Amino acid sequence: MSNQELVVLGQGGPGDCCPGLLTAPLAEDQAVELAKVFKALGDPVRLRLLSLIASRAGGEVCVCDLTPAFDLSQPTISHHLKLLREAGLIASERRGTWVYYRPLPETTDRLAGILTRPAGEPLPEPAEAPS
Amino acid sequence: MSNQELVVLGQGGPGDCCPGLLTAPLAEDQAVELAKVFKALGDPVRLRLLSLIASRAGGEVCVCDLTPAFDLSQPTISHHLKLLREAGLIASERRGTWVYYRPLPETTDRLAGILTRPAGEPLPEPAEAPS
Repeated sequence: MSNQELVVLGQGGPGDCCPGLLTAPLAEDQAVELAKVFKALGDPVRLRLLSLIASRAGGEVCVCDLTPAFDLSQPTISHHLKLLREAGLIASERRGTWVYYRPLPETTDRLAGILTRPAGEPLPEPAEAPS
Repeated sequence: MSNQELVVLGQGGPGDCCPGLLTAPLAEDQAVELAKVFKALGDPVRLRLLSLIASRAGGEVCVCDLTPAFDLSQPTISHHLKLLREAGLIASERRGTWVYYRPLPETTDRLAGILTRPAGEPLPEPAEAPS
C-alpha cells in the first residue's frame, strides 16, 4: 500500500456514492461523517487555507508559503491544516524541512454533489412574513 | 417590505455572486460569512434536520413532525433549527400552534457553486506516500 489511505465520506462501496442531502432524509451515520467535513470548513482560517491550497496553480503549497498569509503562529496554522487533512480535504507530504499540502478535490466534489438539487427542481414559493 | 430579509453569504451585489473557494484565495470577510454557513452544517443533528426539511415533498415541515425523528428534547431541536435559520439555510413561519420550516435552496445552491471546480480542471496527481 503505497498511497495514503484516506477516509472519504460515504465511500462505503461503489453503490454508496453521493447520497443527496436534499433529496432524501440523511441516515444517522452518514450525517455524522458528513458533519465532520462541514465542521472542518466551519472556520474562516481553515476556509482561507483550503482556498489558498486549492487555487495554487502548481497543485501544492509549502507550509512556509501559507503561514505568512495569516497573523497566526505556525503551530496554530499547523493545527488548522491537521483538521483539514483529517476531514479528507487536503493531503500532506513532508519533503526535507517542509511539509507540502495539496487539495483533495474528490472530497469537495462530493460535498458539491450532496448540496446540488436534482436538475429541474423548482424553488419553493417564498412565504410571506406576517405583517 | 413583506418578504423576510435574509442575509445570504456573498450577496453584496449583483456582481458579487459565487466567488469560487477553489479558484482564487478567499477574502477574509468572505471566509467569515461562508464559515458561518458551513459551521451550521457541521453537526449531525442539523444536517439531518435540513435533510428532512429539504426532502419533504410538500416543501415545508411542521416542527411537530421533526421532533419525533430525534431522541432529543423540543428545545434542543428548536435550538438547532434556529442555527440553520440564522445561517440562511431554512426559513420558518408560525401558523397557529406550530412553526413550519421550509428549505432555502438558494443558500445550498451557492455552497454547491462555491465547492464546484471550474469545468475541465484535472485532478492533481496523487503523491506517493514515503515508503
